[in-house]
Amino acid sequence: MSLESDLALAQRLADVAGAAIRPLFRSAYSHEAKADASPVTEADRAAEAAMRRLLDAEAPRDGIIGEEYGAERPDASRQWVLDPIDGTVSFMAGRPIFGTLIALLQDGWPILGIIDQPISGERWVGAMGQPTLFNGKPAATRPCRNLADAVLATTGPQYFTDHDGEHFMALAAKTSHKRMVFGGDCYNYGLLASGHIDLVAEAGLKLHDYAALVPVVEGAGGTMCDWNGEPLNADSAGHVIALGDPARLEDVVEGLACHH
Amino acid sequence: MSLESDLALAQRLADVAGAAIRPLFRSAYSHEAKADASPVTEADRAAEAAMRRLLDAEAPRDGIIGEEYGAERPDASRQWVLDPIDGTVSFMAGRPIFGTLIALLQDGWPILGIIDQPISGERWVGAMGQPTLFNGKPAATRPCRNLADAVLATTGPQYFTDHDGEHFMALAAKTSHKRMVFGGDCYNYGLLASGHIDLVAEAGLKLHDYAALVPVVEGAGGTMCDWNGEPLNADSAGHVIALGDPARLEDVVEGLACHH
Repeated sequence: MSLESDLALAQRLADVAGAAIRPLFRSAYSHEAKADASPVTEADRAAEAAMRRLLDAEAPRDGIIGEEYGAERPDASRQWVLDPIDGTVSFMAGRPIFGTLIALLQDGWPILGIIDQPISGERWVGAMGQPTLFNGKPAATRPCRNLADAVLATTGPQYFTDHDGEHFMALAAKTSHKRMVFGGDCYNYGLLASGHIDLVAEAGLKLHDYAALVPVVEGAGGTMCDWNGEPLNADSAGHVIALGDPARLEDVVEGLACHH
Repeated sequence: MSLESDLALAQRLADVAGAAIRPLFRSAYSHEAKADASPVTEADRAAEAAMRRLLDAEAPRDGIIGEEYGAERPDASRQWVLDPIDGTVSFMAGRPIFGTLIALLQDGWPILGIIDQPISGERWVGAMGQPTLFNGKPAATRPCRNLADAVLATTGPQYFTDHDGEHFMALAAKTSHKRMVFGGDCYNYGLLASGHIDLVAEAGLKLHDYAALVPVVEGAGGTMCDWNGEPLNADSAGHVIALGDPARLEDVVEGLACHH
């Protein structure tokens, strides 16, 4: 398949996921119900099932790595990586800043990625060698002359080990606390691609959490790597940096390395 | 003036603030520009100035307490409390979860409050003795049988002193970390009024940060108080609890009190 037809299929995947998710957003939640029956679990499963049905019909030889239903055809060179709801707590809390993540890996490397926010109708589409699009228009990261001016985002301190937290705080100390923002999950990476956030640093991310982000961020002029500045892979242990202005990479890695 | 005409005026204040804010959301931000000229400062000032013009014309004997331009007629028994952009970092980062806060104090007590999100077009309106309305429809908090099931929100750890942080973490330990959500500012209190969040605990809030929240939360069936369970006033030193199910108040105050 061509990249264009892959992109068209990826967009249809985002469409069917959004259609499954929207009716369950802010729907009544009973604390009496089993955790299994919560709207977020229901939305997660319905969205992934809808995406899998479409992939089974349209790309039956491709592999699938999904958060909810595991792996299919794990030996295929092309793998679709699906995270129907990244930011489940945001979804639960009624915040329209969670997202559906869709990536296509070719021989292990993400060649396309989508971040879709189905409530506000915002979609970032990235593909290798192409400019990232936000709702169909080119998106670009912004320059950041000085780390002290950076808007820094991370989803929450509870996702860091104590050790990670110390390194993150060392980085945060090089920025302004007045420009640090918590929460946001994948939505932060979209806003970075659009030039509103300069830096995201997180730990504990799994492949389905970050694969789709890479083409979006890099196609907008930013860079993604691990906390040592190395390409993301299994050795990164989920320690992810996204940076809008690659010229600040050395400062960021240096900031994360020390903790006095 | 009657409460109805005050409410109509408050809604017009939210309208003019939103009209001033919307064009500046996600507008280009130059790190080279002075802090004074940032879009968030510009939006903050333009929105407060628009609200003050309307108040000067429609309620010339009322006092005004505004975040940007200080106090006017401080001896009046009626005081409008204005926070044009609560959640400035969210605004800067391009997240549509900041809000405009408008309260009317009668002899120091908030008798009406509005939380307005001008990008998504979401508005919570609370008034003494009336049910809170979300976009014109009644909003209600939800029951919470057990603190362990609560969705707990706070804007960010950087707003706590070390001491506050220890007490907050003692409370958080009684809930599930899987249901803790960061970021959100005033938007969290609106979502609590609509039954999506159970508990918000914050420190360092000023009068203009919390006055509007009280009628919204209480008119939806929730309760607001300080970290000791006492009514909010100058002695609270900005330590605020909002709780959807007042039956859990003792558990929350107990949770905040210990820190082992």
